[in-house]
Amino acid sequence: MNESLDRIFNAKSIAVVGASTDPKKPGHEILKNIVDIGYKGKVFPINPKADQILGFKCYKSLSEVPEPIELVVFVVPAPVTLKIVEEELIPRKKKFNDTVGVVMVGGGFKETGTKEGKEREKRLKELLNSVGIRLIGPNCQGIIDTTSKVNTTFDVGDYRKGGVSVITQSGALSCSFLMWAKAHDLIGLDKFISFGNMADIDVVEVMEYLADVPTTKVIWVYLEGYNDGKKFLEVAKKVSAKKPIIVLKPGRTQAGAAAASSHTGAMAGEDQIWDAVFKQTGIIRAYTLQELYHTTRAFEKLPLIRGNRIAVLTVCGGLGTLCVEEIASSRYLRMASFSEEAKRRLREILAPTATVGRPDGYIDMTGSVTEKLHYEALKIVLNEDGVDGVIFLTTPPAFLPQREWAIELAKAYNSQPEDRKKPVIAVLGFGDSAIESKRTLEENGIPAYDFPEIAVRVMDNMVKYYLYREKAQEA
Amino acid sequence: MNESLDRIFNAKSIAVVGASTDPKKPGHEILKNIVDIGYKGKVFPINPKADQILGFKCYKSLSEVPEPIELVVFVVPAPVTLKIVEEELIPRKKKFNDTVGVVMVGGGFKETGTKEGKEREKRLKELLNSVGIRLIGPNCQGIIDTTSKVNTTFDVGDYRKGGVSVITQSGALSCSFLMWAKAHDLIGLDKFISFGNMADIDVVEVMEYLADVPTTKVIWVYLEGYNDGKKFLEVAKKVSAKKPIIVLKPGRTQAGAAAASSHTGAMAGEDQIWDAVFKQTGIIRAYTLQELYHTTRAFEKLPLIRGNRIAVLTVCGGLGTLCVEEIASSRYLRMASFSEEAKRRLREILAPTATVGRPDGYIDMTGSVTEKLHYEALKIVLNEDGVDGVIFLTTPPAFLPQREWAIELAKAYNSQPEDRKKPVIAVLGFGDSAIESKRTLEENGIPAYDFPEIAVRVMDNMVKYYLYREKAQEA
Repeated sequence: MNESLDRIFNAKSIAVVGASTDPKKPGHEILKNIVDIGYKGKVFPINPKADQILGFKCYKSLSEVPEPIELVVFVVPAPVTLKIVEEELIPRKKKFNDTVGVVMVGGGFKETGTKEGKEREKRLKELLNSVGIRLIGPNCQGIIDTTSKVNTTFDVGDYRKGGVSVITQSGALSCSFLMWAKAHDLIGLDKFISFGNMADIDVVEVMEYLADVPTTKVIWVYLEGYNDGKKFLEVAKKVSAKKPIIVLKPGRTQAGAAAASSHTGAMAGEDQIWDAVFKQTGIIRAYTLQELYHTTRAFEKLPLIRGNRIAVLTVCGGLGTLCVEEIASSRYLRMASFSEEAKRRLREILAPTATVGRPDGYIDMTGSVTEKLHYEALKIVLNEDGVDGVIFLTTPPAFLPQREWAIELAKAYNSQPEDRKKPVIAVLGFGDSAIESKRTLEENGIPAYDFPEIAVRVMDNMVKYYLYREKAQEA
Repeated sequence: MNESLDRIFNAKSIAVVGASTDPKKPGHEILKNIVDIGYKGKVFPINPKADQILGFKCYKSLSEVPEPIELVVFVVPAPVTLKIVEEELIPRKKKFNDTVGVVMVGGGFKETGTKEGKEREKRLKELLNSVGIRLIGPNCQGIIDTTSKVNTTFDVGDYRKGGVSVITQSGALSCSFLMWAKAHDLIGLDKFISFGNMADIDVVEVMEYLADVPTTKVIWVYLEGYNDGKKFLEVAKKVSAKKPIIVLKPGRTQAGAAAASSHTGAMAGEDQIWDAVFKQTGIIRAYTLQELYHTTRAFEKLPLIRGNRIAVLTVCGGLGTLCVEEIASSRYLRMASFSEEAKRRLREILAPTATVGRPDGYIDMTGSVTEKLHYEALKIVLNEDGVDGVIFLTTPPAFLPQREWAIELAKAYNSQPEDRKKPVIAVLGFGDSAIESKRTLEENGIPAYDFPEIAVRVMDNMVKYYLYREKAQEA
């Protein structure tokens, strides 16, 4: 276990240099979010002009704080930051040996592309390194821990606890994305780290740490660049054998690389090399924010899949057709196949207009379906040896009670033995009335998506990871 | 103008054979939707066992209805349908010459793949043809017209009037999709036709008709197959020169083709041929339901683009980077270029941390942006000769009032001269607080999407159509 990271995520006291009384300023938002998330440790706002902010006593400088400070957040301009580090933080650290890490929120360093900015970043790193203080940033939002309730971001306050940990170079992007995800309430967060320019603590160190954190089930990474491909490869291989890593990384194109460079000073490098690295390490590369979001939440929610044969069970021929098409165009998925016995039983229970096994692995129950048939059909399909996972699709028929059919479907899913549970993904989305069906499915462990192409992409990513794990375990 | 289609969409009286008193049955839903949409014509439910349904007097048979029936909807099983057509509808038509068209909701025809089903469909077509009655279906939902308020579907009731007309082989898919779109209220409907097996009235005839309908601005097509590629090509070329056609068509893969065949009996044919047809006719092929939805609503809302040079204006470096990347990977788009004068002015008004023109056509205003700068920056960008369209991206900063910045952005967009207006697409989506920003933008004519990849794909489709129109007009 990485001790400094573990102490940072569990810091018992936080000082905020540049704390502000103005609710419009990040230096105020950070304090507000510390309160919102329910942090129980000590908080020391540093502001020479205020007596107190949000009920916390203010100090004029770091030097004045009479108690140990484990984590310091800087929300002041770059030159001021350097001055305070040199004149206040380092002497303190030498005296009390208290501070483990700092979060540098502001920019003005390497990402500016200027000589001055680069030198400033180098100097900052040297200063902190000389006294053994670890650096998160600069040009970042810092960390959130939903267990210890440490929070240094100015965007995200309270967040539902769960199994997803986030590593990101773009604080604004990932924070906003989390807030959007929060509105849907379908992702639970474990730990979050935004390190912007990654001058010290970097993606490899955090991945390695998270592999050892039992509460982290899935690791989500937004990466703009990393210099040491070999080190990344070695560590990612080990981490990926333990838990899935999903990466969103721009830089596929020269223009994208140029924009990334002006954003965090990252060198995107050759994208083909990154693609090879992701392939060798079993990392799932998401190409869009949607794919990142939906793949992550599927991994958090579902059991790992153990094969690539997918059955398609639909109530709507149009959606079913689109889904089969996407499966046939996917990288890893194949249509499942049904035994003669299963096909016979399905034909027996379903309406005469239903289609069974045309193509193989496909069932169109048609609109003549009942609530109960949702249970019975899925049950038969899940029991088949030739099926590793199921995509269920519907445009919920107006005449079926919304909660009931969803409960029947979930009953079949949850009646599977835990140790051999096969994942089921639903596609429904359409219609106002589907909201209740959706919620019922999600509450019972089945992710419900709006569109077949997303369900297929997610299933494809799950199989990709399964294939990597199989190989890694054989070796 | 196609007279029979025009009379069907403006039918002054509708009979529903198989009208039901049971609210769970399609034969009841159809009547309910006729009422919900506010149809002012005459309605004749046909049901031998009921006196009245939803306030309409019931008739025991078609023969008993004492007034002209222009449109007949059949919601009874296939064999009964054939019997009633033969014994009641044809004698009536010969006597009164009233009925223009019928909608056959039920299945049991060609889509079953059986000899019996195929013969039934052939017989039905022959019978109707012998007296000059046009057929919509079988195995379909029929039509909606938001002007005449004719509605034969059992899924969609009232719908906001607008410029989108829908042609579909899958009634359930498109109806559900419309209902989902209705919840977002960002698409207005003109006409809708679902014809399932397309035994008579088909996609080509309806496209040609809609080209002449002034209220239709965009045509949206869900197609599983069509036999006469040459005819399709000829008509689509002409229609597409007048208004954009967006097609979603499964059948890229053998499995998809097999599923489509079991759904509507369509022969998918070689997909490469279809791709060539779409290319030659300027038809936009959407590959997913999301792409279909967002492209359609952009065409309904925005002015046509007049070039392929896109400026990217962002508040968030991460989103901006993803967007530039998507543009570089797109088929038709190029980054815009800014004049030296524009770059000078932008650097003057924006924060020192902002990035202007690195890469060319790209501006990262950063979180240090004000409401007013949204107006000023967009205004400068839209005035540039090297810019044909703009994608604006933001993760709305918590400290900016949500409505205000959106109003400033919209002000710049709407201050353009109408005849040279350039399209602007926004990406924001993130965060609860963005809902008000989104609504403000949409109300002021700027589509707001959740993800950069969607905005780029939509812009790419708009440029694809522009390039076709240019060429078609030159020829």
